[in-house]
Amino acid sequence: MTRSGPTRKRPTMKDVAQHAGVSVSTVSYVLNDSGPVAPERRNRVLDAMRVLEYTPNESARNLKLRSTSTIGMVVPELTNPFFAMVAEGVQKAASERDVLVVLVLPDASGQPEEKQAKLLRSQRIDGVVYLSGTGSMPASLYRLARSGPVVLVDEQIPGMDLPAVVCDSRKGAREVAAHALEQGHRRVAVIGGPPSLWTSQQRLAGYREAFAGAGLDPDSVPVFPGDYRQATGEKLAATALESDSRPTVLLCTNDLMAIGAMEYCRRVGLRVPEDVSIVGFDDLPVSALLTPRLTTVRQPAHEMGSRAASALFDLLENDESEELGVLPVTVQLRESVCAPREGR
Amino acid sequence: MTRSGPTRKRPTMKDVAQHAGVSVSTVSYVLNDSGPVAPERRNRVLDAMRVLEYTPNESARNLKLRSTSTIGMVVPELTNPFFAMVAEGVQKAASERDVLVVLVLPDASGQPEEKQAKLLRSQRIDGVVYLSGTGSMPASLYRLARSGPVVLVDEQIPGMDLPAVVCDSRKGAREVAAHALEQGHRRVAVIGGPPSLWTSQQRLAGYREAFAGAGLDPDSVPVFPGDYRQATGEKLAATALESDSRPTVLLCTNDLMAIGAMEYCRRVGLRVPEDVSIVGFDDLPVSALLTPRLTTVRQPAHEMGSRAASALFDLLENDESEELGVLPVTVQLRESVCAPREGR
Repeated sequence: MTRSGPTRKRPTMKDVAQHAGVSVSTVSYVLNDSGPVAPERRNRVLDAMRVLEYTPNESARNLKLRSTSTIGMVVPELTNPFFAMVAEGVQKAASERDVLVVLVLPDASGQPEEKQAKLLRSQRIDGVVYLSGTGSMPASLYRLARSGPVVLVDEQIPGMDLPAVVCDSRKGAREVAAHALEQGHRRVAVIGGPPSLWTSQQRLAGYREAFAGAGLDPDSVPVFPGDYRQATGEKLAATALESDSRPTVLLCTNDLMAIGAMEYCRRVGLRVPEDVSIVGFDDLPVSALLTPRLTTVRQPAHEMGSRAASALFDLLENDESEELGVLPVTVQLRESVCAPREGR
Repeated sequence: MTRSGPTRKRPTMKDVAQHAGVSVSTVSYVLNDSGPVAPERRNRVLDAMRVLEYTPNESARNLKLRSTSTIGMVVPELTNPFFAMVAEGVQKAASERDVLVVLVLPDASGQPEEKQAKLLRSQRIDGVVYLSGTGSMPASLYRLARSGPVVLVDEQIPGMDLPAVVCDSRKGAREVAAHALEQGHRRVAVIGGPPSLWTSQQRLAGYREAFAGAGLDPDSVPVFPGDYRQATGEKLAATALESDSRPTVLLCTNDLMAIGAMEYCRRVGLRVPEDVSIVGFDDLPVSALLTPRLTTVRQPAHEMGSRAASALFDLLENDESEELGVLPVTVQLRESVCAPREGR
């Protein structure tokens, strides 16, 4: 790979430091422009590198193994506590390895994912943990995934063979929906996530299995596609509950939309769960604080983040990571679901 | 500063690129080790730099103005939505300038601030936005503040003349406490923040002004110092409400502790506000969703973050930033405060 050929011993940073009469850390400063070095000393280091035919790209590879590296983390925004918890998990795992995390928030920043991904590529980022808010991958990140490792979290992107840390959304959705149906509900409506998102599809698929298992035709249940935001949940709850055959239970594919639905009910004087049962997904910290406490499905957000980061580090160090598997979810039966009242 | 002296025109990256017969971006890749460059081309660039006496430290200064830079952002953790909103504000302002943000979470990562700050210093970080969870500054960050700009947010650190983006916590605390006292409350208890934090001191000072204004001896009001965490609010509410002269109102210096206090009341069957009024501070998004909706003081968390980032960029580009001033807060009168019942 270098002019010095494979057989001859490569010069090390130590050799350069000795030749230039400076410390190894000074050489590292010059290589990475990461610290103050007087011009005269810097030039001595550059001269020594030239004389010894020391190749920075080789040194860069050594540095990558030796010194602090930086990874990128892309989540849509932080006001959704689920994303914040995933981000915390990533940062915790990274800081245990002395790895820095560059935070990118396409939605919050109001910048298109493509621009944000370009920004990441422009810097020395060793790899990326990516939580997609769109279900597709920006072209820049796609190119990044070709040059460096990318690990997906809470999402799988069709057509891309990338490691992904996900949980069993389908099973959790099926179980929580089955619990609601066991109370006797027959008029059901689904407030769904973005149809293009793999997770929304998984949760919807789980609901449909529960419908079929309870003798309901899955295609007879109305689905109102949303965007995982609270305001949208409030809007769609209005649409669903103002329909002629008012549903007695709303299955919401995330907690924020379920919270929005509860806000709508509060506003118009519908009691939860007596008038309408509501189910969420994620188990945000706030969900257990609401009145009534929200029945939902817990995803191990923090662990999902730390696992994704660990998988990324394995890829960086060994060019391979062990099978990631699928993390389990746990249904949280609380107070927002009860049997439908007679005569409705 | 360089061997080429002040009068002679400095060689530019363009000169190096022409001399080496490569593109300017290739030169930039070599300087920053930020992209793949074949060893042979890299050596041509290094030779050209030497021949032209191109000084990387000068180029680094140019690069700082031209290309993407990176700032650090330290907040204790992200599960407190206030910190998450500040972090979003910083990231938004940064992405508008094509600046990357390195996220550091001392509490969440379980790593001491000192170690985290060292990690930041080890990398090429142009400046730091720092939200202290301790009220003091780690030695490494202190040294960082001597070498590069640091902007504090939601906190002032005694003895350090650092720009800080804060809001009028004292006024907000005084107004919300005055509102509670106007309902006729006389048995008051304060659930405070960490005594070493400037913000906790400001909010407590505001409460005391309200006590004095209502004819209460400020020193007669019990203060239970906490740590801004929900579980602590629940614990301290138990201590306060199990005391002989049970307070009829709890003034909590942040929303998370107020939420903890509400959880305690719910657990033991105390009604809020009929049995005990509760007041918070921050106005987290969840606070308006609780039952009863929490009376609190809104801090412009998002704007605080973006302002701190903007101030940091001013310091980086002009070595000075305009007067930051103090952001206003707004009292949110909701449902968690009412008049004390007779005969208590």
